[in-house]
Amino acid sequence: MRAHEATLEEAAAALAARTFYSRYPESPSPRVYGETAAADGLATYESYLGDKFVALGDQPADGDVDAEEVSPFGPRLDVSYPHLDVDAAITAALGAMPAWRDAGPRVRAAVCVEIVSRINARSFEVAQAVMHTSGQPFVMAFQAGGPHAQDRALEAIVAALVEQERVPTTATWEKPAKGDPIRMVKDFRIVPRGIALVIGCNTFPTWNAYPGLFASLATGNPVLVKPHPRAVLPLAITVAICREVLAEAGFDPALVQLAAEAGGEGLAKTLALNPAVKIIDYTGGPTFGAWLEKEAGGAGKLVYTEKAGVNSIVIDSIADPPGLRGLTGNLAFSFSLYSGQMCTAPQNVYIPRSGIRVGDQQASFEDVADAIGMAISKFTGDDAKAVEILGATVNDDVRGRATDIPGLAERLGGTVLLDSRAVAHPTFPDAVARTPALIGLDVADESAYTQECFGPVAFLIATDSTQQSLQRLTETIRQHGAMTAAVYSCDEEVLDAARDACAEAGVALSENLTGPVFVNQTAAFSDYHGTGANPAANSAYTDAAFVANRFRVVTSRRHV
Amino acid sequence: MRAHEATLEEAAAALAARTFYSRYPESPSPRVYGETAAADGLATYESYLGDKFVALGDQPADGDVDAEEVSPFGPRLDVSYPHLDVDAAITAALGAMPAWRDAGPRVRAAVCVEIVSRINARSFEVAQAVMHTSGQPFVMAFQAGGPHAQDRALEAIVAALVEQERVPTTATWEKPAKGDPIRMVKDFRIVPRGIALVIGCNTFPTWNAYPGLFASLATGNPVLVKPHPRAVLPLAITVAICREVLAEAGFDPALVQLAAEAGGEGLAKTLALNPAVKIIDYTGGPTFGAWLEKEAGGAGKLVYTEKAGVNSIVIDSIADPPGLRGLTGNLAFSFSLYSGQMCTAPQNVYIPRSGIRVGDQQASFEDVADAIGMAISKFTGDDAKAVEILGATVNDDVRGRATDIPGLAERLGGTVLLDSRAVAHPTFPDAVARTPALIGLDVADESAYTQECFGPVAFLIATDSTQQSLQRLTETIRQHGAMTAAVYSCDEEVLDAARDACAEAGVALSENLTGPVFVNQTAAFSDYHGTGANPAANSAYTDAAFVANRFRVVTSRRHV
Repeated sequence: MRAHEATLEEAAAALAARTFYSRYPESPSPRVYGETAAADGLATYESYLGDKFVALGDQPADGDVDAEEVSPFGPRLDVSYPHLDVDAAITAALGAMPAWRDAGPRVRAAVCVEIVSRINARSFEVAQAVMHTSGQPFVMAFQAGGPHAQDRALEAIVAALVEQERVPTTATWEKPAKGDPIRMVKDFRIVPRGIALVIGCNTFPTWNAYPGLFASLATGNPVLVKPHPRAVLPLAITVAICREVLAEAGFDPALVQLAAEAGGEGLAKTLALNPAVKIIDYTGGPTFGAWLEKEAGGAGKLVYTEKAGVNSIVIDSIADPPGLRGLTGNLAFSFSLYSGQMCTAPQNVYIPRSGIRVGDQQASFEDVADAIGMAISKFTGDDAKAVEILGATVNDDVRGRATDIPGLAERLGGTVLLDSRAVAHPTFPDAVARTPALIGLDVADESAYTQECFGPVAFLIATDSTQQSLQRLTETIRQHGAMTAAVYSCDEEVLDAARDACAEAGVALSENLTGPVFVNQTAAFSDYHGTGANPAANSAYTDAAFVANRFRVVTSRRHV
Repeated sequence: MRAHEATLEEAAAALAARTFYSRYPESPSPRVYGETAAADGLATYESYLGDKFVALGDQPADGDVDAEEVSPFGPRLDVSYPHLDVDAAITAALGAMPAWRDAGPRVRAAVCVEIVSRINARSFEVAQAVMHTSGQPFVMAFQAGGPHAQDRALEAIVAALVEQERVPTTATWEKPAKGDPIRMVKDFRIVPRGIALVIGCNTFPTWNAYPGLFASLATGNPVLVKPHPRAVLPLAITVAICREVLAEAGFDPALVQLAAEAGGEGLAKTLALNPAVKIIDYTGGPTFGAWLEKEAGGAGKLVYTEKAGVNSIVIDSIADPPGLRGLTGNLAFSFSLYSGQMCTAPQNVYIPRSGIRVGDQQASFEDVADAIGMAISKFTGDDAKAVEILGATVNDDVRGRATDIPGLAERLGGTVLLDSRAVAHPTFPDAVARTPALIGLDVADESAYTQECFGPVAFLIATDSTQQSLQRLTETIRQHGAMTAAVYSCDEEVLDAARDACAEAGVALSENLTGPVFVNQTAAFSDYHGTGANPAANSAYTDAAFVANRFRVVTSRRHV
């Protein structure tokens, strides 16, 4: 465990300064992960298929979960998982808590880092599991589901450690008095809240679950991991690794348990309302998120949610034609990546109906729309290459919208600027892969663009002016939330106004992205993923507030 | 404002180390506060009586509040306050927010410290207002309502400043890449949550309101202060000072507004559910506290509550007869101070029915009860001196219980070990002052001792053993909450067991207090007031979690 001390130190420094840091290499290259890593990971993944998942050991079970996992790329996974015996699991978790509590923050952090480093070693296996549950293309499943998720885990562990170590273990309190001062010694003890529940999502099963899982575990709380019924395997592997490392380190594996369920069982509700559950981390749809905030939040539990929103871009002006190509290329990537099935993917693009300035020229709204459309078409023109960016559509809801863009445009009162195209997957013929569509709307079509339209569709919205674009950005995000926002302008006053608009909206802003960074990407240790300041999410990965309330401090004081 | 830099630095160091620190002298001595300070404060206080409170300036009003303030010492205050025009107040507060936000954490902290130092200079005036609304004896009203409350305010300001300054204002992010690294500059901007509401209580109108008020204000949020209908004046003076200093510093006084109400209006509910209100700090009864947690908490607002509980003491053994005298004297003071009308006053005293060891001797349960009773009788024997500790009973509920201890004991199924005695106040003949009573209960009388019995009554509870005493302490506090706990033992194993019991219960422990520190006292900067880990309070004055979520961070990033 000593080996992890340096990692914790470097990571803590980066987190404090919000500078670049990454502990786990994002390249799936054999030079990094070893010549056989990819093949070994695939083989291990394949060994799970059509079988019982047995790596959870003696986790208390009262039956099996009939799996619903079907790869968005086609094949059924057919893995069955033990169904958690909830009462026995709660009892086991509570029993495991005191020894974990008394181990102290630094031991917990080291054990957690060891877990993450074991997960890292199995990144290819996890990547396959993420790919075939989320529909992410392989490289993205590797990066976002593997090293990037692992970096987010480390970020949460380090944030938790720093926060706990800000509390001194002991203090001598000496109050001046007539004669001798009054002296007391005060010991401060970190205690956990209770059992934590992590509710995973379908599209980013590991990336979104790891911050809450490791923030709670590192602060002393046992964790129940409730995966999405269609994305169990990535978290089952994760929980198995957690339990293995905990046991090796001499702790009770009941500190992390998997609560797999069949769809429709409603296990998340049952667990969320269990009185022993004190902390809940959730990523997913806004309806259940709102229920959790109201019912579990109203019952005094800590509830951290990431839901949905209307991510927005304002295009005002650009310095020159190459800049415009940078803009359209950058946006084409952002719209295409994982077919827009990211909580950070842009949706609403506000453009003045009079067009934008490009250097000395004026480009009309139509010119800009055409340029973006052409960039998308070009970027996704080769099917074999396109599927490595687009991945596969994750569910019927997304597929339904993507396959009938004209119908969607009609329902929304808009016009099709670019239709979605079916892309044939060379390896997985059953995968439904779709290129992004563009629908033109007017700023007056408010009901059309104030709800999330998940998947490969973006709206180009004609406004009266950039000022109105920024106003709409602020208003829609204050009401409906957003994870990301971007602005394109070569006018410093507009950029300043955009910063103010985003401060009012409570959303992070990316300015003039025309290079290799995209609005839908947030970097661990540096970017706050979510602000907690608008309805899309009530918290941020990872700030002090995300970890500081997961533990409490109990003092004992006495005279000396 | 520069003058406050040193204060902020010293206070931040003390808060980090949890060592002794006090900025505002607790002695009401003329040598500290000036020869005429006491008389001036009294005169200013008296100038408010029977009149309209006009010091709030142009705060938007839609009428007057018919005051209900009657001093527990007798006289009616007859002050009338402007009734807040809620819609106009919300609009004004929101309008004041951007300039306050953009001033930044350090300017806000300096302005807040200036407010507190002005409040400090008016400590005698505030003390009179606290005394005649809460019933606290004068010296306590001065200390707890004045300097100690001011120290708690400074603690919140410093905690907020430190927390905000942990976020860098800017970072350069440099990701290694083939060729040149990818470089971005990221600016991080602190933004407030929205309007904060502080709901004051009757017994500690300033002490309990200041942490929330200053934590919210220092993090950029405008504050509405809703005092208890019977304790308006201390917070009206406070708000007037806030507004005066804010205006002098060039900010809109609408950042702090008083929301006085007549009893029965339900203004707290109205304000708590207003969508613009995002943060609520509450001290008071558990019924309304639970409503706030459920309804406002469930609506996604941050709710910080301090309610009620069953503060507990376990007596196991004591080293020698002088130690026993120290114990009984210490407890007599704790029970008597402000007639037990403190959220930290002890209530349940668990003593083995077989008695306790005192050095080589065994003292029976009755011996211990007699010794505590005698200590109380002796300590409160002289009426003129006793009222300076007891103060006056704050309301009819407390008076009803205190004047019929035999009836209370009968209802609880206990026996009167010491009756409460009416104490004549030499200056205020209408004050109802009562000495503490002791009621004997058996550990089986669970329903009797698992609810808060506010006021001058304590229970001595006979248990089978110290082990059972500690068990009951843990169980009752986990279920019903507590702000404080104490243990008396000369056995290291018992002390260790008590520390574990309190860690499980989530309550702060004082060990073997036989000197000049009392279980009901918590020191700013060092002791956490409340743990947030049991039902008595969901937060602690003041830890990182108390401030870290009152602001959010909005990033803007761009390539360089």
